Amino acid sequence: MTVIAVDANGADLGPAEVAAGARLAAQQGVEVLLFGPARELGESGGGVEIIDAPRSIAKELNPASAVRGAPDASIVLAARAVGEGRAAALVCNGSTGAALVAGQLHMRRATGIYRPALAITVPVPGRPVTLLDVGANPDVRVEYLVQFAFMGAAYASAVLGIERPRVGLLSNGIEPERGSQLVIEAHEALVARTAGSDALVFVGNVEGSGLTEGVVDVAVTDGFTGNVALKVIEAVSQTMLVTIRDIAQASTRGKLGGLLLSGGLRPFVEEIDPEGQGGAYLLGLRQLGVVAHGSFTRQGIARAILRARRGVDEDLVGRTHRALEAAGALRRANVGAAS
Amino acid sequence: MTVIAVDANGADLGPAEVAAGARLAAQQGVEVLLFGPARELGESGGGVEIIDAPRSIAKELNPASAVRGAPDASIVLAARAVGEGRAAALVCNGSTGAALVAGQLHMRRATGIYRPALAITVPVPGRPVTLLDVGANPDVRVEYLVQFAFMGAAYASAVLGIERPRVGLLSNGIEPERGSQLVIEAHEALVARTAGSDALVFVGNVEGSGLTEGVVDVAVTDGFTGNVALKVIEAVSQTMLVTIRDIAQASTRGKLGGLLLSGGLRPFVEEIDPEGQGGAYLLGLRQLGVVAHGSFTRQGIARAILRARRGVDEDLVGRTHRALEAAGALRRANVGAAS
Repeated sequence: MTVIAVDANGADLGPAEVAAGARLAAQQGVEVLLFGPARELGESGGGVEIIDAPRSIAKELNPASAVRGAPDASIVLAARAVGEGRAAALVCNGSTGAALVAGQLHMRRATGIYRPALAITVPVPGRPVTLLDVGANPDVRVEYLVQFAFMGAAYASAVLGIERPRVGLLSNGIEPERGSQLVIEAHEALVARTAGSDALVFVGNVEGSGLTEGVVDVAVTDGFTGNVALKVIEAVSQTMLVTIRDIAQASTRGKLGGLLLSGGLRPFVEEIDPEGQGGAYLLGLRQLGVVAHGSFTRQGIARAILRARRGVDEDLVGRTHRALEAAGALRRANVGAAS
Repeated sequence: MTVIAVDANGADLGPAEVAAGARLAAQQGVEVLLFGPARELGESGGGVEIIDAPRSIAKELNPASAVRGAPDASIVLAARAVGEGRAAALVCNGSTGAALVAGQLHMRRATGIYRPALAITVPVPGRPVTLLDVGANPDVRVEYLVQFAFMGAAYASAVLGIERPRVGLLSNGIEPERGSQLVIEAHEALVARTAGSDALVFVGNVEGSGLTEGVVDVAVTDGFTGNVALKVIEAVSQTMLVTIRDIAQASTRGKLGGLLLSGGLRPFVEEIDPEGQGGAYLLGLRQLGVVAHGSFTRQGIARAILRARRGVDEDLVGRTHRALEAAGALRRANVGAAS
């Protein structure tokens, strides 16, 4: 049975909520190693093994020094369990920075990968889009973006079940000659590397508006632009919902209108809820990492664990490697060894 | 009386709609030189002077070669009228690229400015944010971003009436050490250049989510990230409105609910309509340019013309220059003369 290492610290609702999520996931046939303050996590059993690791670095401002300075922190122990083969994937909550540092240190970069990236399936209505990188690499090179395309496509096919995903390169215009100098070069490289690929279809540049238009399954960008775009999407959709709710509360007429609409709106509100997508995916390491949003309840945490299991069972890491190899896009040992 | 040169080509609704917008603006005491196909524009009079210029380059794919190859195009003639002092500002429709090229060629860059930038006031609910650059410069340098901060602040104070605007630097985290290498350096430069400024308050980094939170009046970024962010904002807000409308149409219950809510929703829908903000502002030239959205009706076009007038009357260009001079952020003649 697939074993997932889960860090119980970092969730806004506390370690007990993470334990509840782990037990929900275990009921679906996954084994969980749960690292956190044992006195808040209940008994081992039913597919969940509790490992006492009370130290949390989830609120530390500098994740790099926190991870290095706290080898007994729950997230570090969980990442080590994965790195040492006691678990097949890592799930943690809230602190993407700590997950990234602990993952790179203990799970290590996959062979031939330049940089790990964070992917997230964007909470917009309609067909979802997986966006990467959303924050791991504020500065990138052309060859990183090429790899992100294959990493994102492997995730979309293995975990989301989208065959031969359509991949777009985020830019400020759809024409190949639009973009920063780096993006223009990445476009050319992607055309060359993806020609005839079984793993994905490169559809060219996609604008910010393309993220909601269903024209791509995966959108590739640097971690600076991706982070800005993701936070804009979340903020605008949440602001609009709150504004509409406020309007519906402002008058009797509005209240009745809101009540009549609420049944129809519910699936839509759920669709754009970040919890529905199970969190952010840390791609490019030897094993998969999933970072649930700090605000998740037990349902979201269980979903993150089951998504991690699916990534393992569908061999996401192996698929990524084979696709990059077939495209000639793996980093060779003698190239950029210092980076 | 302030004279504004208006290009009648490029609007989705055609030159006659632009002429109608020009006449609406003229009723508010502005004089318009209207360049376009005279047979579609009606008679001169009532503050609107028609200049026959039937050639349109609004649909050309390469604005740079189109502007250079068509000296008789309406947008080129309108920009020349401004450059030669026959009008004080340029208003055109739809083609930002052509406006940028024609503006740089005939209105010329203002003294001490590295690069013109496109600014837009973002259509999100609540207190509006002016975002720049939204597409003129996909690649930037630190000193461009510093100038954009002062250019955006001068616009916000002169045209929007916001005294000493709060300016933020768009980044993937609020801490000064977060961002691409360029953004980290721009943060340092902005702290140094804005200390004690009367023109603006630099509040540090702002995330994508900050654009809807009312924490800044102006957000500064490169033209690549700004374009992606702007198109994401427009797409998410429009997609959500359409989705909510569809839900309200899907059942009798929903229809009644939508009807009851619609009165309360109307001001909100108007607030996030791109037409409400009057278009994009071309800053950093010797005179002001305004690019109305191609989809605007006569009301939006009139608003763009009146905003241009306000920019002229409030001496936006002079304010920008004085603020940059006080901050020591003007480009010196012997620095980067080739760029």
